[in-house]
Amino acid sequence: MSRFWSDIVHKLTPYVPGEQPKVSNLIKLNTNENPYGPSPKVLDALKAEANDSLRLYPDPNADLLKGAIARYYSVSQKQVFVGNGSDEVLAHAFQGLLKHAEPLLYPDITYSFYPVYCGLYNVPFETVPLTDAFDINVDDYLVTNGQKANGGIIFPNPNAPTGKLLALSSIETLLKVNTDTVVVIDEAYIDFGGESAIALVDQYPNLLVVQTFSKSRSLAGLRIGFAVGHPDLIEGLERVKNSFNSYPLDRFAINGGVAALADEAYFQQTCNAIIETRESLVRELTALGFDVLPSAANFVFARHKESKADAIASKLREEAIIVRHFKQERVQDFLRITIGTNDECDALVKALTDILKD
Amino acid sequence: MSRFWSDIVHKLTPYVPGEQPKVSNLIKLNTNENPYGPSPKVLDALKAEANDSLRLYPDPNADLLKGAIARYYSVSQKQVFVGNGSDEVLAHAFQGLLKHAEPLLYPDITYSFYPVYCGLYNVPFETVPLTDAFDINVDDYLVTNGQKANGGIIFPNPNAPTGKLLALSSIETLLKVNTDTVVVIDEAYIDFGGESAIALVDQYPNLLVVQTFSKSRSLAGLRIGFAVGHPDLIEGLERVKNSFNSYPLDRFAINGGVAALADEAYFQQTCNAIIETRESLVRELTALGFDVLPSAANFVFARHKESKADAIASKLREEAIIVRHFKQERVQDFLRITIGTNDECDALVKALTDILKD
Repeated sequence: MSRFWSDIVHKLTPYVPGEQPKVSNLIKLNTNENPYGPSPKVLDALKAEANDSLRLYPDPNADLLKGAIARYYSVSQKQVFVGNGSDEVLAHAFQGLLKHAEPLLYPDITYSFYPVYCGLYNVPFETVPLTDAFDINVDDYLVTNGQKANGGIIFPNPNAPTGKLLALSSIETLLKVNTDTVVVIDEAYIDFGGESAIALVDQYPNLLVVQTFSKSRSLAGLRIGFAVGHPDLIEGLERVKNSFNSYPLDRFAINGGVAALADEAYFQQTCNAIIETRESLVRELTALGFDVLPSAANFVFARHKESKADAIASKLREEAIIVRHFKQERVQDFLRITIGTNDECDALVKALTDILKD
Repeated sequence: MSRFWSDIVHKLTPYVPGEQPKVSNLIKLNTNENPYGPSPKVLDALKAEANDSLRLYPDPNADLLKGAIARYYSVSQKQVFVGNGSDEVLAHAFQGLLKHAEPLLYPDITYSFYPVYCGLYNVPFETVPLTDAFDINVDDYLVTNGQKANGGIIFPNPNAPTGKLLALSSIETLLKVNTDTVVVIDEAYIDFGGESAIALVDQYPNLLVVQTFSKSRSLAGLRIGFAVGHPDLIEGLERVKNSFNSYPLDRFAINGGVAALADEAYFQQTCNAIIETRESLVRELTALGFDVLPSAANFVFARHKESKADAIASKLREEAIIVRHFKQERVQDFLRITIGTNDECDALVKALTDILKD
């Protein structure tokens, strides 16, 4: 506490990211990073950026990267916004598109940064409970179904930390009725089994789709996020960004991102490997007595029929395996487990087998 | 304009950075970049970062970099904040430390991002005119001299775009009287001839000093800024940062920054080269009929006794030399010219000689 702080600072409850331990030899299944490194072609492109041009500012508009994203998703460059990780893109969306007199709506169980942004920008919000099966039911967001008028809607798809996917048809149902406020679909995990709502941006001018290079493209350490939507929404984000920081993406991020989009074969191969490992892990966890929510992400959300989640997490930690446990109501019995390599998941299953035997 | 924007977006006037032209073979003296590339040791460190660890998030606290900055400036790590360029650090300072009921004060002629931040965060402000000699007179900021109560004070030192330096003793005069609000000294250009106010942070708990790696450390393309001040001020900035983006600095920025601080010899050598070139350019511009403000920065601010600034800038552009011209009142007769290599400055002087002959 300090008398020098602006009023808002006293009221903030900052986000707490998953631990980034500084010791090695851990099996790190706590922050949904990709177990495979970036494409070798990306590493080559990044090495090439370590040159004298670093004395110069990057392109403030990151046009190379925007152009590559636009081509990849068959949209125009004016429909693309880029930022320093999808967290920055989301922050600008909360400030620039989702702050209105009516409350923003998002699920009760979801990405825990959303309420933090609401605190930072003083955005009124209300949460909408997931169903008992931990699904998003879009009807619960609709004015036509008795919900009050909203200032915007945001949720991840697949949702975090549940991993459950909402069908694109349900998103379209929502967009057909909710036409007066922005709907943000936060697709950090979409490449592990979902269908992107980018397919809908040409039809719905209030749809913004946010993605990241941190998960499926193995570049959490490089910080690249982006959004695709109607040029008017993108212009709103650009106005905020250009009032905040002209050059949020450095030269490595811009050019590494372009190289990542160019190596489609590597991308497909690593995504498929993770999906296969996930399906195998789900079978093994189920055999060990876990209920595992169906996942379309690079993690699973699982609760054991008998043992407490926090106790399991502590014992795994003693075996140098880190998973994530959330204390929040409704999900405190669950563990969120990132899909690692086959070897890492085998080690996890072996450790769990021993722990649950005790 | 869009009905989907939050109210604040309609009112924004975003910052316009100096042009980053996409053609080469230009002599680019418009955005105060360093004419020398980063230290070869920095380039080696950056190449080494292009590895599989990029799949992992960076340290959200960037402790390695904070530690290196703390050791370099002989302060504690709790007195150090880092951000994605000093523009991001400044943005957080405007939101977290400088927004109060009373107006923020800054010079009428200064870094043109300040009013933009005020627009983004709805910070009330008033400008304080520079003297006729384009100096900051700290007396003009003091309540004891008839100035109204302020919510904070910010100015660059050396000031931009004038390049003029304020003595550390004047900053201390200000701090001795202005004890109730935060004073931010924005030292983007301090290494080219000034004395850093970091020397004062242990004595004045309301002093925040902001610096960047973009100018004197030749890393504009990498995006590293930092602030040094009392741990309470740093905590305020951390609370804002952790409510905005957990990982603003990527792995290249963290480790490249550490390597840059480690090569003191290269840093001294390039700063000294720029200072020598500046002094020589000042003599030549003066001989060509320019009034040049005394500069402690890596640029000069100069007006010709007869020829119009915008006309000179246009003609230089025809010769593939870019300098910056601001249309703002009081300074529209000036050109801001970045110090390039000796060869670049020779080419500038030759072009100006031809232009002014016409």
